[in-house]
Amino acid sequence: MERIGIGLLGYGTVGSGVGRLLREGAEELRLATGKEVSLRRVCEVSPERQALVSPGVDVTADFADVVGDPEIDVVVELIGGIEPARTFQLAALKAGKAVVTANKQLLSQHGSELLQTAEDAGVHLRFEASAVGAVPVIKVLRESLAAAEVTGVMGIVNGTTNYILSAMSQTGAEYGPTLERAQELGFAEADPTEDIGGKDAAAKMAILSSIAFHSRVTLADVEYEGIEGVTDADVAHGKSLGLVPKLLGVAKLIDGCMNVRVYPCFIPAGHPLAGVSGAYNAVFLESESFDRLMLFGPGAGGTPTASAVIGDIISIVNSAPGAFIRNCTCYKDLGFFPNGEVVSSFYVRFQVSDKPGVLARIAGIYGEEGVSIQTMMQKGAGENAELVLILHPVREAAALRAIERMGALPVVGSAATAIRIEGVDER
Amino acid sequence: MERIGIGLLGYGTVGSGVGRLLREGAEELRLATGKEVSLRRVCEVSPERQALVSPGVDVTADFADVVGDPEIDVVVELIGGIEPARTFQLAALKAGKAVVTANKQLLSQHGSELLQTAEDAGVHLRFEASAVGAVPVIKVLRESLAAAEVTGVMGIVNGTTNYILSAMSQTGAEYGPTLERAQELGFAEADPTEDIGGKDAAAKMAILSSIAFHSRVTLADVEYEGIEGVTDADVAHGKSLGLVPKLLGVAKLIDGCMNVRVYPCFIPAGHPLAGVSGAYNAVFLESESFDRLMLFGPGAGGTPTASAVIGDIISIVNSAPGAFIRNCTCYKDLGFFPNGEVVSSFYVRFQVSDKPGVLARIAGIYGEEGVSIQTMMQKGAGENAELVLILHPVREAAALRAIERMGALPVVGSAATAIRIEGVDER
Repeated sequence: MERIGIGLLGYGTVGSGVGRLLREGAEELRLATGKEVSLRRVCEVSPERQALVSPGVDVTADFADVVGDPEIDVVVELIGGIEPARTFQLAALKAGKAVVTANKQLLSQHGSELLQTAEDAGVHLRFEASAVGAVPVIKVLRESLAAAEVTGVMGIVNGTTNYILSAMSQTGAEYGPTLERAQELGFAEADPTEDIGGKDAAAKMAILSSIAFHSRVTLADVEYEGIEGVTDADVAHGKSLGLVPKLLGVAKLIDGCMNVRVYPCFIPAGHPLAGVSGAYNAVFLESESFDRLMLFGPGAGGTPTASAVIGDIISIVNSAPGAFIRNCTCYKDLGFFPNGEVVSSFYVRFQVSDKPGVLARIAGIYGEEGVSIQTMMQKGAGENAELVLILHPVREAAALRAIERMGALPVVGSAATAIRIEGVDER
Repeated sequence: MERIGIGLLGYGTVGSGVGRLLREGAEELRLATGKEVSLRRVCEVSPERQALVSPGVDVTADFADVVGDPEIDVVVELIGGIEPARTFQLAALKAGKAVVTANKQLLSQHGSELLQTAEDAGVHLRFEASAVGAVPVIKVLRESLAAAEVTGVMGIVNGTTNYILSAMSQTGAEYGPTLERAQELGFAEADPTEDIGGKDAAAKMAILSSIAFHSRVTLADVEYEGIEGVTDADVAHGKSLGLVPKLLGVAKLIDGCMNVRVYPCFIPAGHPLAGVSGAYNAVFLESESFDRLMLFGPGAGGTPTASAVIGDIISIVNSAPGAFIRNCTCYKDLGFFPNGEVVSSFYVRFQVSDKPGVLARIAGIYGEEGVSIQTMMQKGAGENAELVLILHPVREAAALRAIERMGALPVVGSAATAIRIEGVDER
């Protein structure tokens, strides 16, 4: 039986999970691939982690031992970060080895270089675990939906922010204490900046939208906002309107151009993404050909992420030498659609003086900007009165200009909060 | 560029959808596969349907023209039913042609013969569209999760019943009028027997559980119940307890044995499957390695089903000659776990005379059978009083025996309704 040797870079949580699944699933792998797939060598600098490697597997601290080993067919890079991961992946690909990685930072910033190198070398580069953990959305997009025109991708692709927003929704608590509680429970890191600020989600959306739209999107192309400004008041008002807060990655194909962003938004409580709570992730896809598909599962965690790595290894092993390898699925060169021209519905909240004529002033400004109001609710009274508006779908530029003009009115007490509303089914 | 010829059997709703997607997606298919994939010949007996085929595509009423055409590489069977579909598929496979089908009846009853024939001929047999329409759950199970031990599959795999139960939940209406309304709107067929009775779902669960557990499950192995007995009263009581009614296919791996059934049940409102409403389908998978995954999308419809067929064609075309072909993924031979030994929670409702001592009698019987009651609610009073119980997880045989004994009590007015409760997260 043909043997497939795996070289593993990094033996942390995910790496040791891959080691365990390769060992415990050896029989299943043999049956699924018709080949003997086994872990041959681990490259890891930490002595503590080296000690965790099973007997019978070579351990080294020197990458040259992996790239130079002719019996290693697939290199699994789980070091993370840009360097030395980039150098190692490029060297492995050039040496004719397939590469599997979970490295979203690297893929979202240097994906083009890596994929072209793989293409030139005629080997596979797979990265399912870089986007949504155990959820095989990249495989589904690349293979099952390769000929479908995907027009929309909406993703809950960050577990930390989804945990926090779900908890705020359920308990009514404020943002700060909820973040602290998430940190205590291990759902948020000690330094959660990249998660709560939206950068982690933006890197994942760069990868997903590249594959979905067949056109290059890098992290620098994805504008992102985090959840720091979401208040318990907004969450409560949204709830009373049947809306659920989510940090969404939103990628849309509009008039043949892409718009890819990450922002906190509201979705209707009946939308399939609204039920994705806690640290779970989900990606919702739209297309004329398949209507709507959603994939849901754990977006992180050692074993689920390792499970996605194993899925990639199976895909590679099952495609024979000579099988068509298309690493670069970004064969289109689409432009970007300007944010201001995107049509969205908005939730807007601001403090107002509860005086006669205020509503008329506000309604007048909206009218001048061509913005139409679907719902208007006043909460509270006197100097603490708040006005909550739901705007009909409108060009973002117009909505934001109307909100800015509002802020300049003497009767408006504080800067307005504006939150986009996504997932309203207009069919 | 290498050419891949497609032969299409049947040009109804799905067949013409496949024809359209092949035509409109020709460029995407070329980019995704590196080959020229095109519809070469359609075999269809109806002259009306023949007239719908695009110019440039050969039309025949004789299957021999398809199987004998050396330029046809992939035969897509969309005739449905057992014969002549079975004979045609076998002949195509033996002629060395790959086969793609949406035929759940055939796969769930003769899958073993077909897969073995494909294996012997060294060609692919793919059937994504036979289970959950556009939702690529078979590909994910076969490839991404090939080495994972899947321990549970729960599926909303019939759109008609999900539409009816969702509507009953939302409107509080009775079963009969809701079915009629579904028929008027095209969500239920004129003869909906196979849908509402659970047989359609059972065929799909036979296919899904075969792949998930790597062991043969045929339609005859799947016990099924339909939704005919679900009353508006049960739906309303369930709602007050935070439970949502669903017709679920439930496949469990228990002590190394399989239990595969279809029945109406309640799931908690917070479960990801609870949010799958209307005619949508979803499959929820459990495993120690990936935790939980759910795939959601349209389970039927011409274009979504056609989209799944296209996905299968791409998978076949992208695996080179010489690539490992494992059609028969059922390489285990697991037994079946007896229904009576399955542990489930139950919702039970029965009419009682509202007299002193009734509750004591009932509680006494449950106690004797070792069944423990989690919740007991009395609805109404006097001769019309109803008792609703939620049982703690218990062996089904014990629960059903207790319910039967209850029915023999003089104070119990009517046969009890018992509905299983699934998806209660005990972690």
